[in-house]
Amino acid sequence: MVVYDTIIIGSGVAGMTAAIYLKRANLNILLLEKNIPGGQINQTPAISNFPGIKQIDGVSLSLSILDQLKNLGVETKYGNVIDIKTGKIKTITTDLEQYKTKTILIATGRKPKELGLENEKQLTGRGISWCAICDGPLYKNKTVAVVGGGNSAFEEALYLSTIVEKLYLIHRRNTFRADPILLEKLKQKKNVEFILNANITKINEENNHLKNIEVNNQPLNIDGLFIYIGFEPATKIFEKINIKMDNGYIITNKKMQTNKKGIYAAGDVIKKDYYQITTAIGEATTAALTIKRDLE
Amino acid sequence: MVVYDTIIIGSGVAGMTAAIYLKRANLNILLLEKNIPGGQINQTPAISNFPGIKQIDGVSLSLSILDQLKNLGVETKYGNVIDIKTGKIKTITTDLEQYKTKTILIATGRKPKELGLENEKQLTGRGISWCAICDGPLYKNKTVAVVGGGNSAFEEALYLSTIVEKLYLIHRRNTFRADPILLEKLKQKKNVEFILNANITKINEENNHLKNIEVNNQPLNIDGLFIYIGFEPATKIFEKINIKMDNGYIITNKKMQTNKKGIYAAGDVIKKDYYQITTAIGEATTAALTIKRDLE
Repeated sequence: MVVYDTIIIGSGVAGMTAAIYLKRANLNILLLEKNIPGGQINQTPAISNFPGIKQIDGVSLSLSILDQLKNLGVETKYGNVIDIKTGKIKTITTDLEQYKTKTILIATGRKPKELGLENEKQLTGRGISWCAICDGPLYKNKTVAVVGGGNSAFEEALYLSTIVEKLYLIHRRNTFRADPILLEKLKQKKNVEFILNANITKINEENNHLKNIEVNNQPLNIDGLFIYIGFEPATKIFEKINIKMDNGYIITNKKMQTNKKGIYAAGDVIKKDYYQITTAIGEATTAALTIKRDLE
Repeated sequence: MVVYDTIIIGSGVAGMTAAIYLKRANLNILLLEKNIPGGQINQTPAISNFPGIKQIDGVSLSLSILDQLKNLGVETKYGNVIDIKTGKIKTITTDLEQYKTKTILIATGRKPKELGLENEKQLTGRGISWCAICDGPLYKNKTVAVVGGGNSAFEEALYLSTIVEKLYLIHRRNTFRADPILLEKLKQKKNVEFILNANITKINEENNHLKNIEVNNQPLNIDGLFIYIGFEPATKIFEKINIKMDNGYIITNKKMQTNKKGIYAAGDVIKKDYYQITTAIGEATTAALTIKRDLE
């Protein structure tokens, strides 16, 4: 059985970028895909902050990177990882096959939690957003709502508050998981209004675009809805092999090494400050070059 | 006099990427350029490891990012920074004008040192390379020479040794600045030959491509020459304001803050493990988002 130099788990931007660097470094690698390549960016209809590409939709960017991998001859396999055995040579078992490898790069990303309402996914990029830094500029001088009560929601609300005319912070409780300092800052913003003990009960659409929302069954007119009710990093399987985590996010050093020798992580799956395509690409490069050096 | 939120010094990939993020965050920013935008990548004829763009020359990538800045309405000025006054409001003086700003992002990059030989710059991308990770794959199963005796030269030689058929390590002394562990590793490579107490005395070209080189006036046939005799980070001016550095490289924390409040750095100018376009872009994003938060 072939022993790969590296198996990359996850084919989002981080996993695919690492594949480019590892393959060009002449290593024998395998990219394990669970879904369509691209990961989280496939949910993004318009990426406007990627240097070198003026504007592109997430699916096109994914396919474009995938095309690079194909040109390089990167081996890819489908499969859902169900077991990992560590050691000098590691064994990865998917629902379909078993593989052996010297190193593993975890690039499984994270998923935003959903409200679970009708129209929610369908109107993504059409009035509903999951990324204030990405889509904020579209709502300059407009009215938006941010739903959530944690640090992400508050940080994104603070970010948006300097761009939009009016911002509603909607939260199902009247207490917050967010840090008190963020709460204080947001309270000081004159254009921010808190709507507490409140649930979004309906998302109404018109011409395939967000029309308005209903909060506790009362209509609220907004131009944009930013959903920040948390994320789920895809790391359940790595708990078994005792990868060090914080709240489900993998802890790495700045070389992207985890606490386990020969296991690395990059992209949205790691604990860090900013979850952007650009930061994922930087980390993936760092991880790949560290793997190359460590394998020497 | 207008007080900018941020002045970015340097318009390479890092500076321009930060400009995209800062401008979209609705901040009042100025990008100070000393040269043609793009910086170091303008010397790169073919970039093949940038995710999302299969192959592009450095100048085209620069111009493409510059075009994004123009579309966003980023203000840019030419000028060579000759003085900086720190404080809550900072003053930057160029040879042409004076500016005031709340924060500064240093993105001045670094330059590779040159051998100072005829044809050296002209054959860049035509047999001469300054980046093994970028251009290594072009020399698969070929013969190359790496010139230099420091860690960069040795790391790049190790990297290349797994790709090429034969590698000469040329160094003007018979002792090395490189770490002993790197020396040991390189010595163990069967396809690596050391040429010591040796200077490259001539670079010969044929049809505007590297023909061969002369080492201590003796011809040596190689397909590619990788020059790694050191880099010069562009940080002289920042010594005056006591920015913490290591060997001329600026020390940042993982949020890209320097030791001076309100002064940040990103890209090739900082001390780090890997100097790649992708890592620069990641750091620039991190710096921009930290600046946005710190300004709140």
